[in-house]
Amino acid sequence: MIKNKLFLRALKGENVERPPVWMMRQAGRYLPEFMELKAKYDFFTRCQTPELAAEITVQPIRRFGMDAAILFSDILVIPQAMNIPFEMKPNVGPWLPNPIRSQKDVDQVIVPNIEETLGYVLEAIKLTKKMLNDEVPLIGFAGSPWTILCYCAQGQGSKTFDKAKKFCFTQPVAAHSLLQKITDTTILYLKEKVKAGVDVVQIFDSWGGMLSPEDYQEFSWKYIQQIIDALKEEAPVIVFGKGCWFALEEMSYSGASAIGVDWTITPENARKFTNNKVTLQGNLDPTRLFSPPKVIKTKVTEMINRFGKDKYIVNLGHGILPNIPLDNVKAFIDAVKEYQEPK
Amino acid sequence: MIKNKLFLRALKGENVERPPVWMMRQAGRYLPEFMELKAKYDFFTRCQTPELAAEITVQPIRRFGMDAAILFSDILVIPQAMNIPFEMKPNVGPWLPNPIRSQKDVDQVIVPNIEETLGYVLEAIKLTKKMLNDEVPLIGFAGSPWTILCYCAQGQGSKTFDKAKKFCFTQPVAAHSLLQKITDTTILYLKEKVKAGVDVVQIFDSWGGMLSPEDYQEFSWKYIQQIIDALKEEAPVIVFGKGCWFALEEMSYSGASAIGVDWTITPENARKFTNNKVTLQGNLDPTRLFSPPKVIKTKVTEMINRFGKDKYIVNLGHGILPNIPLDNVKAFIDAVKEYQEPK
Repeated sequence: MIKNKLFLRALKGENVERPPVWMMRQAGRYLPEFMELKAKYDFFTRCQTPELAAEITVQPIRRFGMDAAILFSDILVIPQAMNIPFEMKPNVGPWLPNPIRSQKDVDQVIVPNIEETLGYVLEAIKLTKKMLNDEVPLIGFAGSPWTILCYCAQGQGSKTFDKAKKFCFTQPVAAHSLLQKITDTTILYLKEKVKAGVDVVQIFDSWGGMLSPEDYQEFSWKYIQQIIDALKEEAPVIVFGKGCWFALEEMSYSGASAIGVDWTITPENARKFTNNKVTLQGNLDPTRLFSPPKVIKTKVTEMINRFGKDKYIVNLGHGILPNIPLDNVKAFIDAVKEYQEPK
Repeated sequence: MIKNKLFLRALKGENVERPPVWMMRQAGRYLPEFMELKAKYDFFTRCQTPELAAEITVQPIRRFGMDAAILFSDILVIPQAMNIPFEMKPNVGPWLPNPIRSQKDVDQVIVPNIEETLGYVLEAIKLTKKMLNDEVPLIGFAGSPWTILCYCAQGQGSKTFDKAKKFCFTQPVAAHSLLQKITDTTILYLKEKVKAGVDVVQIFDSWGGMLSPEDYQEFSWKYIQQIIDALKEEAPVIVFGKGCWFALEEMSYSGASAIGVDWTITPENARKFTNNKVTLQGNLDPTRLFSPPKVIKTKVTEMINRFGKDKYIVNLGHGILPNIPLDNVKAFIDAVKEYQEPK
């Protein structure tokens, strides 16, 4: 039985004393204890060694006491397992020597056996659950099929993912075939994660906001909906689409337990676009954590007042940046814990 | 007297036979005749030589017959003139060896004499007007103060402009002082451009969508509003804010003659958020020009039907990409010229 249930209660829409708080990428580079491990072990070693992944997952909880942990991992473990061999290239990041740009390329992609290819993630979950000792729930995550396709077809990160979009717009049949394979793999993967012990799953659609509303329906949303349909009976599902304000209404009817929003939408509009019916998560601009702690506390309190303390999970509007001072992170977390509803 | 008045009529909100069409970055890298000049002359030479800038401006009109020309130039000519010496660094793009990150740095920045520092732009305008021979109107442009600050404080392009935002959020007084200097310079600059012959001005807020709605008001919009107030009696003003859907309502009351929208908003929402009162410009996803010409034509026709033919200027939702096939550009332009309202 998990002791701190705030996060799970908010996901069910129950009334709470204060909203729960966690931060996207909270297990990461702003933490000195993470940087120590980063100096010793490369990216793939950190992801693939259950002891390291579990330790990194627990680090922020130990220091700041967030209300949920999120498993340290990467969205690109999925294509790796699908026979799409990403490398980490210095000064570039994830890099694919032969990007996927034809039906022939898609035909080489497999829907893998999860235990065989991603057993290390499942081990990391079991170990993390032991280390967390039921203090707080554990979130497992996956990228959206569209976001995974972006990297696979572009071959690396990009400001516009023009090559990935060109692939979709010139070879839609091949693109949909790849998206379906990623979707099938993601469903198997998230189900195994839940079996291994994660309490909640989050789908990150980091690049959904690069698409027009119509193209979003065709190339991103319909696959996310498949994942929600397959997972929602197993665990609460959170969907976060960066820049996807235009899809919020549809998301609110999807069966997801919560919808993440980025910082370009006001709390009032986020509530309005989701018809006040679903738990929302977000949305402080991550760069606002550079502000002095006093400003951060004021902004967090205002944010909770505007979203309302119920059906709400405090978070950033995207991942925490490196180089954020620890005192500022503490101000962000503490402001939530000290929150008092205005009389 | 300009012969093709479609664009100016749409800016006035008059009823038209069909909407006018032009493309952001239409004088650019998808054109073989541009690439020939690019091979011979570097970036600054192209911007600073009136004969070259004028020739490049006219190239797309000659080939495709858009309903407006836009002067070939760059938003960074403004900081250059303000004593902020950008360089062009291979594989990086615009680069500032010493980014502006303190009040002391801001104190070094000047509001220049436009004729002395940017006379080459004014010469290019006069020459272009002669070459256009009153066939179509000429647009002059500037970056928004916020967008210019992004480059000045970051020192180069960026996915998040985290250093620029950190500058604003930790040293707001210095940031506002820089924004005001850029605003003052931009107003002087655009007034001189109108005097030299441009018929319309457009303000590009390329990075406004990186800000929360509250921060957008504080760091971007209030300066754009100053520019509109100062210019609107001199020439029609178009404001384009990429990712700035959340500010559309305020923009519609600003005195701007048209508001540009990117492709992440439906025509219906764009009309709704602007209360149906202002001319809109946009918004096909630039990567959609990779689609086959037949698909492009269908999409353009649908787009016009949805925006409505009046109070509307057909454009892309951001600049045209390099490597777009010429036949696809032709399909985009022709679809507008052949447009017939549905019975």
